[in-house]
Amino acid sequence: MMEQVNLYFSGKRAKLLEELKDFIRIPSVSTSPDFRKEMFRCAQHVAGLLHQAGLEHVKEFSAGGYPIVYGDWLYAPGCPTVLVYGHYDVQPAEPLELWQSPPFQPEIRDEKLFGRGASDNKGQIFLHIKTIEALLELTGRLPFNIKFCIEGEEEIGSPGLSPFLQANQDLLQADLAVISDTAMLGENQPAVCYALRGLLGVQIDVRGPATDLPSGSIYGGAVQNPIHALVHLLSSMRNDNGRIAVKGFYDEVLPVPEQERKALAGLPFRDSDLVKRLNAPELFGEEGYTTLERAWIRPTLEINGIHGGGEGGQTIIPSTAHAHVTCRLVPDQNPQVIFNRLAKHIQEHTPPGVEVTVTAEDPGHKPYMTPINHPAIRLAAEAYENVYGVPCHWIRAGGSIPVVETLADLFDIPVVLMGFGLPDGNVHGPNEYFSLQNFDKGFRTLCFYWLRLKDCL
Amino acid sequence: MMEQVNLYFSGKRAKLLEELKDFIRIPSVSTSPDFRKEMFRCAQHVAGLLHQAGLEHVKEFSAGGYPIVYGDWLYAPGCPTVLVYGHYDVQPAEPLELWQSPPFQPEIRDEKLFGRGASDNKGQIFLHIKTIEALLELTGRLPFNIKFCIEGEEEIGSPGLSPFLQANQDLLQADLAVISDTAMLGENQPAVCYALRGLLGVQIDVRGPATDLPSGSIYGGAVQNPIHALVHLLSSMRNDNGRIAVKGFYDEVLPVPEQERKALAGLPFRDSDLVKRLNAPELFGEEGYTTLERAWIRPTLEINGIHGGGEGGQTIIPSTAHAHVTCRLVPDQNPQVIFNRLAKHIQEHTPPGVEVTVTAEDPGHKPYMTPINHPAIRLAAEAYENVYGVPCHWIRAGGSIPVVETLADLFDIPVVLMGFGLPDGNVHGPNEYFSLQNFDKGFRTLCFYWLRLKDCL
Repeated sequence: MMEQVNLYFSGKRAKLLEELKDFIRIPSVSTSPDFRKEMFRCAQHVAGLLHQAGLEHVKEFSAGGYPIVYGDWLYAPGCPTVLVYGHYDVQPAEPLELWQSPPFQPEIRDEKLFGRGASDNKGQIFLHIKTIEALLELTGRLPFNIKFCIEGEEEIGSPGLSPFLQANQDLLQADLAVISDTAMLGENQPAVCYALRGLLGVQIDVRGPATDLPSGSIYGGAVQNPIHALVHLLSSMRNDNGRIAVKGFYDEVLPVPEQERKALAGLPFRDSDLVKRLNAPELFGEEGYTTLERAWIRPTLEINGIHGGGEGGQTIIPSTAHAHVTCRLVPDQNPQVIFNRLAKHIQEHTPPGVEVTVTAEDPGHKPYMTPINHPAIRLAAEAYENVYGVPCHWIRAGGSIPVVETLADLFDIPVVLMGFGLPDGNVHGPNEYFSLQNFDKGFRTLCFYWLRLKDCL
Repeated sequence: MMEQVNLYFSGKRAKLLEELKDFIRIPSVSTSPDFRKEMFRCAQHVAGLLHQAGLEHVKEFSAGGYPIVYGDWLYAPGCPTVLVYGHYDVQPAEPLELWQSPPFQPEIRDEKLFGRGASDNKGQIFLHIKTIEALLELTGRLPFNIKFCIEGEEEIGSPGLSPFLQANQDLLQADLAVISDTAMLGENQPAVCYALRGLLGVQIDVRGPATDLPSGSIYGGAVQNPIHALVHLLSSMRNDNGRIAVKGFYDEVLPVPEQERKALAGLPFRDSDLVKRLNAPELFGEEGYTTLERAWIRPTLEINGIHGGGEGGQTIIPSTAHAHVTCRLVPDQNPQVIFNRLAKHIQEHTPPGVEVTVTAEDPGHKPYMTPINHPAIRLAAEAYENVYGVPCHWIRAGGSIPVVETLADLFDIPVVLMGFGLPDGNVHGPNEYFSLQNFDKGFRTLCFYWLRLKDCL
């Protein structure tokens, strides 16, 4: 059967790439209202792709935000059901001047397809749709039922997804979820991801005098400067050795078994490669942990944005200052508990002369670990190994995929995280790309996976 | 003679206010290129005012930036020469929504003339021009020579002024400078200002990874976050008690005589009034000093602006982070010396994983003290007391007026700082106003001053 798949793919490759380019050409940036029209256009486009693949009940569900596109094939009664999740929205492309080719004019260079969303997540969800299309064309049927759920708000934290899933549990009910929204370990280093960190987003707003003041006059030195107060607060949250200094921050962090740390240490990953790739002066992180441990098994607190006062050479004391902070959480940290401790820390460390407001962005997301011994998850590794011809790695991811936690909570099903992106694929940055090697092998890996999946469920 | 002045003013008041409104209507914002045309229009307008006043050799000098408007009356040979300095440029008016009436549509409410520049500096330089016009009309002559130098770049640090003065020393040569660009102590509390703080502006740029990175993936926790590095650096510059923690920062600060501190303590100034006016939670400043001491006799280090990462809820580790810092300096601090110490502090406190660039904006400005016993300066107090009918206060100012240092350095002449603004006149903020009481009394105070000045030089 894989021979037929290979033949099919060889014949269609050029056309498929053109189709993927069309998908990428739609600037479906969910973070800015400027692209609202394009977002709806993209949802329609996704619905069209599902139709074309042979899926039924295709529908754009909308509950205020951007549509969630659904489609299914349910002609395997008595057989298990797979839920495929993906997202059609992309990160903003700015700063545009750093792109070698325009972000929404996809271009192939050096065996890479460049464009915003090429890897995250259009390229990968496209592979899912197209492999199902292929199997339906080649065999007229699937050995299982399948449901697609493709949302448009992943890059803004999936606010509408969890309510949608809860309100439509019967429709979405499945025995297994498969998601390709993670990265492999490197070029030709396929990897199944077995753990995601959780997420807590917090906005910190500092208010001082009612209006901006000149830093001379009788103000400079006599009133608290909200930026000073903010940097004092933020600085107090982390020690020089990279440890988070918020009381109780690590209280629920489960120790990672020595065996797992050994396995991580054995992965073909080198700090020097990362430094080079990032063009950063050097790496830095929590004392006592390796880079992969810092990124995968340890929680973090990062300041994502800070703003106060003018951008030029103004000599003011600003009225307000603002920061956005996110914590990446690991088992068994709970976003609400961590928020409370962070709020308490801020309350206790607020300098005189200002008022500080701390707001959690949403309930946050709990960290997630998948049952690594589930046959459907082992099968993912087998599929990779069969197509890539190298051993599959078992990795964690430092990020969060909000839907994973919801799916696991709601349906209590295993979630297979088999990504085809690359760590240096510039996801979220300029010059995002999808490696054509992974486009080709990803197609075959997924087909291999679908063809064997029935035996695992 | 003052009787004639009063009569003259009574007859002209309404017309003068209309003329001042016309001046304010020109949005001469020097900080933004959007107002470039208006800046040149305003310079022409000032030249017109000088002409109309009876001044000669009126000329708009331009050396790349916005014009410096000059005009003189030199028909008192053998008599001393006074240089009047002012500026026609104004601060940006944003945020516009906070203005009760549009910033460039001046409006009188509650005996106050509202409008951007009403106080800083259009209203005050207008008084200077109009008092000279009055005396020339009333008496046909002045008992001294006078030169006006009105620039258009004060709000952007007067970059062109010092070179202009140096290049035109003969033209500008004077025995005394008079400037009305400071505030009184309060409503009906006239004050001569005898000291200005100096200024050092510094830009701090932190660079980490070459591009913004997702805070998940394998980055979050594994690379230094430039915002963390920046808040760490900035936080290290000031202690919790408000002392600047840069080594050597206070080394050259001259102790202030106990007598002067007593005099400052005796001024009719209350912390509670300031808190109320600013609508700030409370005041804050260096331990061991009163509010006025903190603002006038002590140096400061203020963060005027900080920027890094996104403004929304992005979950990135930004590539760079930036801050603008200014130090207000007191005798005998030197901007260059303080810059070197600040740069050294930053170098010594830079955390691993980032590169930091520190740039001084320009040579900075030295602090200034005027010879308070000079008869022309004592006369300023006498003029205030005569017109306002209350004792004149002797105050310092927490800000800098770059030209003062240059004039004192270049011509070695005393500088009289007699302002008619109010501390709550919202200079640089929304709803700037010029009190009509000070418009009226300011006119008479200046006439009194001009009429007696000859005896003091």
